Amino acid sequence: MSAAGEDRFHDLQRAAVRFRDERDWAQFHHPKDLALGLQVEAAELAELFLWKTNEEARQALEEPAFRGRLAEEMADVQMFLLYLAEAAGLHLPDAVEAKLETNARKYPVEKARGTARKYTDL
Amino acid sequence: MSAAGEDRFHDLQRAAVRFRDERDWAQFHHPKDLALGLQVEAAELAELFLWKTNEEARQALEEPAFRGRLAEEMADVQMFLLYLAEAAGLHLPDAVEAKLETNARKYPVEKARGTARKYTDL
Amino acid sequence: MSAAGEDRFHDLQRAAVRFRDERDWAQFHHPKDLALGLQVEAAELAELFLWKTNEEARQALEEPAFRGRLAEEMADVQMFLLYLAEAAGLHLPDAVEAKLETNARKYPVEKARGTARKYTDL
Amino acid sequence: MSAAGEDRFHDLQRAAVRFRDERDWAQFHHPKDLALGLQVEAAELAELFLWKTNEEARQALEEPAFRGRLAEEMADVQMFLLYLAEAAGLHLPDAVEAKLETNARKYPVEKARGTARKYTDL
Repeated sequence: MSAAGEDRFHDLQRAAVRFRDERDWAQFHHPKDLALGLQVEAAELAELFLWKTNEEARQALEEPAFRGRLAEEMADVQMFLLYLAEAAGLHLPDAVEAKLETNARKYPVEKARGTARKYTDL
Repeated sequence: MSAAGEDRFHDLQRAAVRFRDERDWAQFHHPKDLALGLQVEAAELAELFLWKTNEEARQALEEPAFRGRLAEEMADVQMFLLYLAEAAGLHLPDAVEAKLETNARKYPVEKARGTARKYTDL
Repeated sequence: MSAAGEDRFHDLQRAAVRFRDERDWAQFHHPKDLALGLQVEAAELAELFLWKTNEEARQALEEPAFRGRLAEEMADVQMFLLYLAEAAGLHLPDAVEAKLETNARKYPVEKARGTARKYTDL
Repeated sequence: MSAAGEDRFHDLQRAAVRFRDERDWAQFHHPKDLALGLQVEAAELAELFLWKTNEEARQALEEPAFRGRLAEEMADVQMFLLYLAEAAGLHLPDAVEAKLETNARKYPVEKARGTARKYTDL
């Protein structure tokens, strides 16, 4: 993979770390708390869809106010992921590529096509 | 920002979408389900730290088996984020940059330094 | 409220505590871990509905196998709640009654009838 | 089990249902949304412990303000559980008793004593 191609992930992680260090927050960033915080943010994201049918969600996604809140919650989740990657010394893009390969084995196209079943039930 | 710098995020999102489309799964990817799935994966990630002290978590992070499971769970969260970004037509790196700017206003360095208090309590 | 009326909650909490103490698990039951574990169980519960439409969920609820798994996950959430109540010295039934009264003030019938809006948007 | 012993669970569930019906909210109470809402409330509960060490959590549990917020979040989780039990036609206390029996088989005292390992690792 080219160094150029990694810039955006890498740049964001550095920007998030700089934000953290300016505030002297590394002392709070235990991996367990980062994992807990990520889950809290994921719940705030999911709450945006609570009580909505899929059709109502589709309509909400056309409203700028809703899109703005969604973007903020997604950014919060992404930032906790970046902080956790930093704390654990893991490389997120490589982890995603490896997982896509694992999932390709768990969900072979011919078996998984068109079904939402878990791989254990294929 | 340079187009080159965006490649990795963009490439991963395209790889994830290709994986999805080969299996004809777009029909299941309602934003509400993606948000719910993201929360489920975030919980599986957090479960890795359940019952562990911070010191035990630090030791676990030195074990290859634990690191491998952590990387997989983080990749799952990242993939759901990429799918949700795709479904909502949102651009994750831009959303993170915007949120870092918002947070810089909510948590000014002089007030936030060294405290884990929420901005509403600063 | 009569003492008789409290028996079931109280009995269950005592049965759960006895189960815990026979295994010498109180040492792990930090309130933070109980709250994290509760969230993990809540996610396992929610995962049963992932990718399902409301109609598919309705059908699943008629299948004994699905009902059995749902009952197990709900029991897991309930047990973590009971353990947390024990650890915090809080009384769950009283807390629910107090919250219903608070909610009755936040969501007056004439304003809240037939709408899923949050009280801050009424 | 005696009818008297069930009163409190049963009474709370009826009080919660009455609260719901006065507001005509049954139309929103799809099991999937109740499971999602339960997870959201569980995250709000867990957020109370975010960034806190176990010692700081112990101290917080002595503050009336913290205890009050904890009791409210626990009540929210309990109410969603009661609504889900209502929607699914499941009986929570019986589910907990059955799960305690299942867990007693999964975690035999002689193997599980003093260890936080999952039953799959015993």
